Amino acid sequence: MRVGGRVTKPNPVVIYTKIYIPRITISYIMKSFFNPKSVAIIGASENPKKLGHTVMKNFMDFDFTGNIYPVNPKADEILGKKCFKSVLDIKDPVDLAVVLVPSQFSNTVVLECTKKNIPAVVVITAGYRELGALGIAREQELKNIIRGTKTRVVGPNCIGLFDPFARTDTLFLPDYKLKRPPQGEIAFISQSGAFGAAVLDWAATEGIGISHFVSYGNRVDVDEIDLIRYFIKDKKTKAILLYIEGARNGRALYECIKKESMKKPIIILKAGKFQAGSKAASSHTGSLAGSYSVFKAAIKQSGAIEAETSEDMFDYARALAYQPRPKGKNIAVLTNGGGFGVLAADALEKYGFSIPQLSKGTINKIASIMPDYATIHNPIDIIGDADSNRYAVCLKALMNDTEIDAVIVCTLMQTSSLEPEIVDVLSNANEKKRKPLLVVSAGGEYTQILLKSLEKEGIPAYPSPERAVRSLKALYDSKK
Amino acid sequence: MRVGGRVTKPNPVVIYTKIYIPRITISYIMKSFFNPKSVAIIGASENPKKLGHTVMKNFMDFDFTGNIYPVNPKADEILGKKCFKSVLDIKDPVDLAVVLVPSQFSNTVVLECTKKNIPAVVVITAGYRELGALGIAREQELKNIIRGTKTRVVGPNCIGLFDPFARTDTLFLPDYKLKRPPQGEIAFISQSGAFGAAVLDWAATEGIGISHFVSYGNRVDVDEIDLIRYFIKDKKTKAILLYIEGARNGRALYECIKKESMKKPIIILKAGKFQAGSKAASSHTGSLAGSYSVFKAAIKQSGAIEAETSEDMFDYARALAYQPRPKGKNIAVLTNGGGFGVLAADALEKYGFSIPQLSKGTINKIASIMPDYATIHNPIDIIGDADSNRYAVCLKALMNDTEIDAVIVCTLMQTSSLEPEIVDVLSNANEKKRKPLLVVSAGGEYTQILLKSLEKEGIPAYPSPERAVRSLKALYDSKK
Repeated sequence: MRVGGRVTKPNPVVIYTKIYIPRITISYIMKSFFNPKSVAIIGASENPKKLGHTVMKNFMDFDFTGNIYPVNPKADEILGKKCFKSVLDIKDPVDLAVVLVPSQFSNTVVLECTKKNIPAVVVITAGYRELGALGIAREQELKNIIRGTKTRVVGPNCIGLFDPFARTDTLFLPDYKLKRPPQGEIAFISQSGAFGAAVLDWAATEGIGISHFVSYGNRVDVDEIDLIRYFIKDKKTKAILLYIEGARNGRALYECIKKESMKKPIIILKAGKFQAGSKAASSHTGSLAGSYSVFKAAIKQSGAIEAETSEDMFDYARALAYQPRPKGKNIAVLTNGGGFGVLAADALEKYGFSIPQLSKGTINKIASIMPDYATIHNPIDIIGDADSNRYAVCLKALMNDTEIDAVIVCTLMQTSSLEPEIVDVLSNANEKKRKPLLVVSAGGEYTQILLKSLEKEGIPAYPSPERAVRSLKALYDSKK
Repeated sequence: MRVGGRVTKPNPVVIYTKIYIPRITISYIMKSFFNPKSVAIIGASENPKKLGHTVMKNFMDFDFTGNIYPVNPKADEILGKKCFKSVLDIKDPVDLAVVLVPSQFSNTVVLECTKKNIPAVVVITAGYRELGALGIAREQELKNIIRGTKTRVVGPNCIGLFDPFARTDTLFLPDYKLKRPPQGEIAFISQSGAFGAAVLDWAATEGIGISHFVSYGNRVDVDEIDLIRYFIKDKKTKAILLYIEGARNGRALYECIKKESMKKPIIILKAGKFQAGSKAASSHTGSLAGSYSVFKAAIKQSGAIEAETSEDMFDYARALAYQPRPKGKNIAVLTNGGGFGVLAADALEKYGFSIPQLSKGTINKIASIMPDYATIHNPIDIIGDADSNRYAVCLKALMNDTEIDAVIVCTLMQTSSLEPEIVDVLSNANEKKRKPLLVVSAGGEYTQILLKSLEKEGIPAYPSPERAVRSLKALYDSKK
């Protein structure tokens, strides 16, 4: 980035020339990464073993609607499309170039991209700073090439980006190995490509949608600040997830998050927390991990939410993207299986929430559909023979109860009496988004089908009470 | 139980008559629950909506090899089998009776079971202590009925048991809603039936095997101590999992675990930890949850392993059942995706492990198959282009390195170069069980297929580095 905080406090290693590009231009350039009208695939190949083949094929198979231009000096046609020797041979404008050539050629092709004024370039090619001396020189050269041009670079040494709306997809892995998540509301920025890819694959299988994914690798140019700023303005994005090993400029990132986290929740997983992890991070993406305690305090002060584990990331992001913030700490637990209710109560108490007595009005409403012998208190155990109607009556009462700030529903989908209509009942209760509604449910294939339906309706479901309550805590702690 | 510690310190509510049944007899009776030669299904039904139908059908469909006797005074034949009016009409001996009749008849049929000297009776029927005054009286009557007889009761108000070896299965839920786990090495005792069922269903989908499952509900007779003692002697069981809301006799349970946890690891999830959860537990299974801090200290002192969350349970149990205990705290991390390696190092440091420098010998062995530019240190990042051979060489070096006490392998299955043969490579490394080998791997369908293969080979895989390291800690803390 050549604007904003980092200009006044430059990175100690790399000195940026002060070139002021107007904000509106930057936004246009960033848009070219995620929503390009045309893409050049430099290093496209007919050979299925080459990354340039997979990326080209993915753009074609995933119905990317823009023009696709394969670039390879050795081919005339690739996958049925006319191949160009260089991007300079393409007459039409190109919004996005994906660079997949070996590292001895990658800087040269980026130079050609700058000459063609391609706004967005993703350099997948590895063999830069992470390699040692030779790579550092190559990376410096890349910086020099793009300096002062209108070309922005994501990478090098990265897996690039995925956008399920525009179908932009530079992930060089076939779909059978790495499933792509559906369209959703979470923007996911991962400094580590492989980590990001694994998490995306997991999210896809769980039916969790994303708005955008970026892995920027060695971060020669576009960094987390550029991306956060872009996603803050992006209408599809409701929450921003950041996996980071080390910030390029901690102070600037802090200032950015402090300003932007008022607008949308930002969740951060910091890797390289301690000495050993930090050392590992240094050789991984070549970044200095920095002091965790300083980082932790800064995350909190900036208004971001810290994910302590990799599972926290999407747990928190889903609560924050889908659900309103609770107005207070009084939580009702509703369950058809006592055990999970007990564990939820334990977790709520552990994380500082209250499980208040229910009002007489609410008790009476719930009692109306319960067997005579049942005593009604919070957690509300509507017993193993509960059907979806019993859930409906209870949820309506709890959603209307002004003394209850959020509802955790622990639903065992397996019981004989509970019909699949429980999904509609929960969706109806969630429709007005008056207060947070989080679901706990564990199980196998049948349960997971129902949970995916809930996910589509914007109701986050968690496999354990602990994870639901931690996510509720993240929601409570957010500035939303 | 009518022997052991609890006799000298009886439950304040229920006074047991001192009847000494020789240990060997008890062991025989317990075996009748899990491995019966014949089963009577009291309340069997032709009506698919009745639990007695599902249980009968499950015994037949799941290839239970013993005799199956439906009992129902209103039918002559059920699912093609001759139906009996009462168990007393069955001429052959019956090892196990499953009681599914309404609560107004359940005590009467148990009385008939005692008259027929049926050693094992599972009372699924609800409507006992959990109902209040009427139910308490009914439960007292049930106690009186079985007192002094040779009949032992699991339940009432429970889902009973599942044994994947003998195909004994009283879970009254159809297979499409609740998958049954494969044969394995973990015995799972759950005070909460619904919780247990949901976890079983989840385990089945993950390919995690169990040796036995029991949910004993109101615990009128057979309790956690009887079950722990039985599973300690059971050859198939390598680790025992206990979900408990409140012990019937805390002191006796403590003494039992203290004695038995030297033989096999016992993992306990205590629900009803705090005031709110404890209250919920009291109305759920009618047990007094007791003080968590006392319980926590007792768990530790007894040599059991505490699972803090429901996910911990099988995470820990799988490590403890499959893997040897590490001799020390020096851990090597091996990965083809830097991010997970960094997070693993963080988690290891957080939980008090060391990530030592590697010996020259080990570094040389690993260097032999790495690109020239790679620097080799722990965590060992064998880079995104690693194939299974690179893993094989590294694993061999680490398994032979006497300075390394355990290996955590963070494998991203999605990369282009990694073949499915990684499963064989990991299995070979694990074959001699010289030191713990735990895998971290996140992903979708493709990854999950490979992880299920690892599970079968006795290699526990975890979806996050944090969960692998917590499990390694449980393994380290165990007395194995």
